[in-house]
Amino acid sequence: MNSSELLAALKQQAEMINATMREDLTTIESPLLADIINHAIFQGGKRVRPLLTMMAATLIGPPPADTPRLAISFEYLHAASLLHDDVIDHADLRRGKETANKIWGISPVILAGDFLHARAMSLAGAVGGRAGMEIIGQATAAMVEAEFLQMQIAEEIIPDDANYFRVLMGKTAALISAACEAGVVHAGGNAEQRRALRVYGTNLGLAFQIVDDLLDYLGDPARTGKAVGNDFQEGKMTLPLINTLARADEKDRDLLLALLKGSAAERQKQVASAHGLINKYQGFAVARQKAQDLMDEALSGLKIFSDGPAKDTLIGLAHYVLNRDK
Amino acid sequence: MNSSELLAALKQQAEMINATMREDLTTIESPLLADIINHAIFQGGKRVRPLLTMMAATLIGPPPADTPRLAISFEYLHAASLLHDDVIDHADLRRGKETANKIWGISPVILAGDFLHARAMSLAGAVGGRAGMEIIGQATAAMVEAEFLQMQIAEEIIPDDANYFRVLMGKTAALISAACEAGVVHAGGNAEQRRALRVYGTNLGLAFQIVDDLLDYLGDPARTGKAVGNDFQEGKMTLPLINTLARADEKDRDLLLALLKGSAAERQKQVASAHGLINKYQGFAVARQKAQDLMDEALSGLKIFSDGPAKDTLIGLAHYVLNRDK
Repeated sequence: MNSSELLAALKQQAEMINATMREDLTTIESPLLADIINHAIFQGGKRVRPLLTMMAATLIGPPPADTPRLAISFEYLHAASLLHDDVIDHADLRRGKETANKIWGISPVILAGDFLHARAMSLAGAVGGRAGMEIIGQATAAMVEAEFLQMQIAEEIIPDDANYFRVLMGKTAALISAACEAGVVHAGGNAEQRRALRVYGTNLGLAFQIVDDLLDYLGDPARTGKAVGNDFQEGKMTLPLINTLARADEKDRDLLLALLKGSAAERQKQVASAHGLINKYQGFAVARQKAQDLMDEALSGLKIFSDGPAKDTLIGLAHYVLNRDK
Repeated sequence: MNSSELLAALKQQAEMINATMREDLTTIESPLLADIINHAIFQGGKRVRPLLTMMAATLIGPPPADTPRLAISFEYLHAASLLHDDVIDHADLRRGKETANKIWGISPVILAGDFLHARAMSLAGAVGGRAGMEIIGQATAAMVEAEFLQMQIAEEIIPDDANYFRVLMGKTAALISAACEAGVVHAGGNAEQRRALRVYGTNLGLAFQIVDDLLDYLGDPARTGKAVGNDFQEGKMTLPLINTLARADEKDRDLLLALLKGSAAERQKQVASAHGLINKYQGFAVARQKAQDLMDEALSGLKIFSDGPAKDTLIGLAHYVLNRDK
């Protein structure tokens, strides 16, 4: 499967996922609630999580007819967490568009997040049964625990990379892994197949976030829609920086730490020199290698499955995540 | 069963519910998350919702051993909604104690609410299966929809009592009814028994809230822990006031509406005259009669069950709700 075939296949599935969500959301009564949820869900989005559920199920055999309704529960949970995250971060913009809390204020947005959250869990339970519930329940708990761990380590001067990975695991990888695993279970996969997709999803999620962190420094703003070095300006500690702090000599480390403790305005002026220091200590290269290693491990787990379009798509998705420029 | 026997029986069950929650919450990793959840759950609370699940199950037969774990899901959902409500209302105090958002700020409290919400749904699904999930899912959706309806009707000058009851139905009665229904289903009750407990729970929830609204005007502050006429001071439209506005002559109605549109400081001075007007048009008496009628309907549904301690407790609870003074 070449990359344009992959994109066409994904686009078709994404449209089916969108149609399933539109149908499911017709029960909403309040016009304001419907507006917020439409804003949260139908402003684009690649539907990565539901697509993974569909593909993982298809690996095992023809997916049961209700698989799309299980799949959308992961998109809902993702959207719910973005709604609450933007309230918590007082964010006005997400991917260049006004956030729901900027438009409607925090109260209805907290509630709309609760609604999507509940709807996600209901669907996972109704379609996926006890196993579906257990998978999504564990992912949700992991997401909340990761937010608390992140608050806790924000107070450390130099986070170690074990804690960094624990946060990524909960904030990004747990839900992606759950989306994959739920698809396998729903299609009747066995324990080995379940484990393979859990590993695939976890590693894909971790690699996805590392590539995101790299693009923040190295991406083309015209493609990513974000200013170069945005994370550094915000004092956000991501893997390239953590790698560098761990390897730099005392002078360079003190320089970086002083910048990180200083003002955002000062950091904004020093993005280029931070970039230079990260390069000097190969912080970008080490992070990219880590993403590559994770992806190799993700893909090695897929060897137990016979070849076919679903497996091709999962492999294609992994390559896409690693090589994307936005 | 006399009232002190009832209270002793309820207290013993409530301790069992507390022990079940403490055991269930040991999986929490973050110390801050554990602190917030302890504050939200273990600062008192009568455990009405889990007790109803236990009693409803016991009506059908000896409750399955895992019923307490289903029961606590309703306490979690209740606590989650209070956490988010207090964030939304910027409330500093609840029942005379500092709210979690006052102590820890809104971010961790939104997340702690999400955690309890997810844990509630997980338990309902894991213990109650698809039926448990459906019941709790519908109750959660109803709770959110009711918050939106309330925002919408806050803009109306005189809410009609149909809308007032629709809000109560979602905000209070839906969860209480769900707690009752889930107990019946879990114990293997039939459709008629399910319906009887749904009606009991809905009416109990509605009556509970009406009595709350009455106590706000008529209660003894030393017992209720709230200032007399607090709802009126906040311009909150509850049943005694809605009844009065619907029955008052033009002059009295205009007087009340002017107060409601005016300043809180002015309303504070005029609590006694509002009280007098509500009395003049029997706003309190009509509301109390409504609570009584709802309770009669709640109890009439229990006739299909044979007598015994569980039924006695449910009847006793209804009388307690109607006659409480705090």
